[in-house]
Amino acid sequence: MPFEIFNNLRCDIGKQNKDNVVEKVVSLAKRKGFVFQSSEIYGGLNGCWDYGPLGVELLKNLKEEWWKAMTYREDVEGLDAAILMHPRVWQASGHVDNFTDPMIDCKQCKSRFRLDTLAEQISDKKKEKILRHFPENLSDELTEEFKGIMNSDESVTDKFTAILENENLSAKLLEVTNCPNCGTQGQFTEPRSFNLMFKTFVGPVESSDNAVYLRPETAQGIFVNFLNVQNSSRQKLPFGVAQIGKAFRNEINTKNFLFRTREFEQMEMQYFVKPSDDEKYYAQWKETRMQWYKDLGMTEDKLRFHDHPADKLAHYAKEATDVEYLFPFGWGEIEGIHNRTDFDLSRHEEFSGKSQKYFDEETKEKFIPFIIETSAGASRSFMAFLVDAYNEEEVNNETRVVLKLHPKLAPIKVAIFPLVNKDGMPEIARDIEKGLRPYMKVFYDSKGAVGRRYRRQDENGTPFCVTVDTQTLSDGTVTVRERDSMEQERIHKDELLNYFIVKLK
Amino acid sequence: MPFEIFNNLRCDIGKQNKDNVVEKVVSLAKRKGFVFQSSEIYGGLNGCWDYGPLGVELLKNLKEEWWKAMTYREDVEGLDAAILMHPRVWQASGHVDNFTDPMIDCKQCKSRFRLDTLAEQISDKKKEKILRHFPENLSDELTEEFKGIMNSDESVTDKFTAILENENLSAKLLEVTNCPNCGTQGQFTEPRSFNLMFKTFVGPVESSDNAVYLRPETAQGIFVNFLNVQNSSRQKLPFGVAQIGKAFRNEINTKNFLFRTREFEQMEMQYFVKPSDDEKYYAQWKETRMQWYKDLGMTEDKLRFHDHPADKLAHYAKEATDVEYLFPFGWGEIEGIHNRTDFDLSRHEEFSGKSQKYFDEETKEKFIPFIIETSAGASRSFMAFLVDAYNEEEVNNETRVVLKLHPKLAPIKVAIFPLVNKDGMPEIARDIEKGLRPYMKVFYDSKGAVGRRYRRQDENGTPFCVTVDTQTLSDGTVTVRERDSMEQERIHKDELLNYFIVKLK
Repeated sequence: MPFEIFNNLRCDIGKQNKDNVVEKVVSLAKRKGFVFQSSEIYGGLNGCWDYGPLGVELLKNLKEEWWKAMTYREDVEGLDAAILMHPRVWQASGHVDNFTDPMIDCKQCKSRFRLDTLAEQISDKKKEKILRHFPENLSDELTEEFKGIMNSDESVTDKFTAILENENLSAKLLEVTNCPNCGTQGQFTEPRSFNLMFKTFVGPVESSDNAVYLRPETAQGIFVNFLNVQNSSRQKLPFGVAQIGKAFRNEINTKNFLFRTREFEQMEMQYFVKPSDDEKYYAQWKETRMQWYKDLGMTEDKLRFHDHPADKLAHYAKEATDVEYLFPFGWGEIEGIHNRTDFDLSRHEEFSGKSQKYFDEETKEKFIPFIIETSAGASRSFMAFLVDAYNEEEVNNETRVVLKLHPKLAPIKVAIFPLVNKDGMPEIARDIEKGLRPYMKVFYDSKGAVGRRYRRQDENGTPFCVTVDTQTLSDGTVTVRERDSMEQERIHKDELLNYFIVKLK
Repeated sequence: MPFEIFNNLRCDIGKQNKDNVVEKVVSLAKRKGFVFQSSEIYGGLNGCWDYGPLGVELLKNLKEEWWKAMTYREDVEGLDAAILMHPRVWQASGHVDNFTDPMIDCKQCKSRFRLDTLAEQISDKKKEKILRHFPENLSDELTEEFKGIMNSDESVTDKFTAILENENLSAKLLEVTNCPNCGTQGQFTEPRSFNLMFKTFVGPVESSDNAVYLRPETAQGIFVNFLNVQNSSRQKLPFGVAQIGKAFRNEINTKNFLFRTREFEQMEMQYFVKPSDDEKYYAQWKETRMQWYKDLGMTEDKLRFHDHPADKLAHYAKEATDVEYLFPFGWGEIEGIHNRTDFDLSRHEEFSGKSQKYFDEETKEKFIPFIIETSAGASRSFMAFLVDAYNEEEVNNETRVVLKLHPKLAPIKVAIFPLVNKDGMPEIARDIEKGLRPYMKVFYDSKGAVGRRYRRQDENGTPFCVTVDTQTLSDGTVTVRERDSMEQERIHKDELLNYFIVKLK
């Protein structure tokens, strides 16, 4: 999916604003143990993040919900393919040739820039000035092209980028542009393709014969296993293969926390169908996938489809849409749904020399199925759910920070507090903890005022808090406090397990 | 853990025999969809494997049982650190300098060999002949060394390897040894260190400044996050941090199916303790971890500890033991338990310049905790559970192949069959399927004789089969057939969910 890559990473940067919700979430994420910078004690590794105690549970729950929704059905099988694959896979997929960014170097200071994002590193004022003094000795044809771009409604950044990416105008603009690092004018190299796949070598010899890549997407692991899965599971069309796993892209510019990283996790499902059924299942999966986010509580107003217009479709795609979430920095893709036609299996048939055809027992026909792909970002969904859940509320003249995560996603399901650390309350609270622990992630806390303990759990996104108090000693009931409404009800301690199992279903 | 690496990969190859259980399991694994060769249509990628529809469920169940056992407790937090880490991590850990294999090249044919396994590629007869003609012009001292090795009780392969690894004798033996590939004698280069970490480059420039490694173990991700986890979770000593994730080693010789691979998954827990508590918790975790395998049904007779003798301990380790399983090719390590002392955190403090000390609020002391590590191989455990579950039995003069997997590990929990495809039986069977599906992985099968359907599920390791038959139509009961005993009992269809929830608990 070489061309789609850029769509996968699309994010309306133009709408970026100074709302600091992302900063607040990043700060909370570190303080509470959702996400840490990778190798932080060594200054971090750009584009890589570690999931802490709460984050790993949220991520696990998210993946588990996807796995259940996608594979606990008769027509979808699971798979877990290796990250390292045979290098021919990436020739067949087109990644070796096409999964590239155009890069330029400043000859003076040796800094390297991505051509398509260079404009972001130059101030608007400067860009406007450069464009005003753009070479006037252009042919009539080029002058028309230039004017066409300049007369559009785009921002100056987008205009500048459009000219940089224009085959005929690019070199002329670079001649009058200063290096964002050292300021030297017009000393850029010609753009060169830089492949975004991480390369490594299998075996002791570092030669191109032994080069392999860290997969830039999990999808190819499904395509090359199509017949293995079909033969072993005896599935008939239509059927899907689902996989969760890490992928890697050597991004030049990482940004926006978990949104664009070098190491990330995908949740992909490839649905194999008869060619004539493609539109039906494309429409079905579009619907199903959007509903999944809504069912897990993501704000409906902040979700939309972004259908790819026909003239911007990738070469393999007949139809394509993104599920987008309205992040604080703008709309960003969290999942792509694509009608990939028979492109992938045809390419693998061609490159491997092994038939990838499906035999239809009813019609006795052999053909290459079409593929409807649902490709979700686990890391991006994680970020979207986290940002979406973040709330600040005024309660009794104090700000309450609360993560309104769906109970199925919440890292900790129930927190258990003894009101005071005496009178047998801790013992009862420990008994409750012991009874619930085999069934759900629970947390015991006896430190500080109960109000403070509630607040800590609000920040963790814990949907229920159980408090053992004086009344418990006489009638065996405890208070159960719900996170979002902050309402409390009394439940008998022996009924808690059933109560929570129903609430968390 | 540079030195331990070799222990991690230890496997008594000397005991390898021609019992073909592994071959049978590999064949079943492919046919039924447990494990496929990675990128098989391209001829495979050595040392990498893909988990198919049944395999991914078995692996997920295995990891989930470990996760629950290890983190559903008050004193252990979870973590999911990135695979790519800052390169200084691997300098601090010692991997950059010490995680190496000694390699030699044949100057004639350019083949490359690992010095420590070269002996395996030469026939015993040939080795004996070479050793008989070993140079006689040795100094008295070297003659003594040589005789000492030759008079041991080791196999000829082990003797040959011991001489190859002897600093003073190695070169002399290589002079009279023939290349296993081209047969040329004595044309080997001197041994050179080959680092087993996969190297790649972050950013567009492939220079040593930008080199990073695929982690060869998950443990370091825990060590460098020690204080992040402690601060966010407010844990006090003793407490642990648990993590499941992929690791990569550029092995020269991969072998024994999932036993020694280039890409594999680990389940590691690092338990931070007061230095004076180390022996107590080492003993506790040894016990706990061995019990885990037994609780999940692994044959007790095929499990043992292999304690590392004091003179073979890694430089950081005070005590170390392996949990070993008796594979068809001999005893092989599936988990290591180590008292790592304060080695790791001290090294990271030294290399990062950031204090890694723990502050004890009671004693007001600051110190670096000791670490007790439990390091299990998910991929190796997967293989051990699969091999251990494999059974062939004679039933009615036919061979029944059955995977006696613990119900918690079994990929499919319940298979549902209508006895015949008419008289309303499929409808009832579908109703049962629908009722169970949200709670467990189920499988519906209406094809072929019921006996054959049972056999298919035996090979899948499915613990229970439900059959809807004529009697169901009159009284609503179905037969539930248990995999291992093959016994059947009648259960009312409305009671199936509770019945299985209890059985699977």
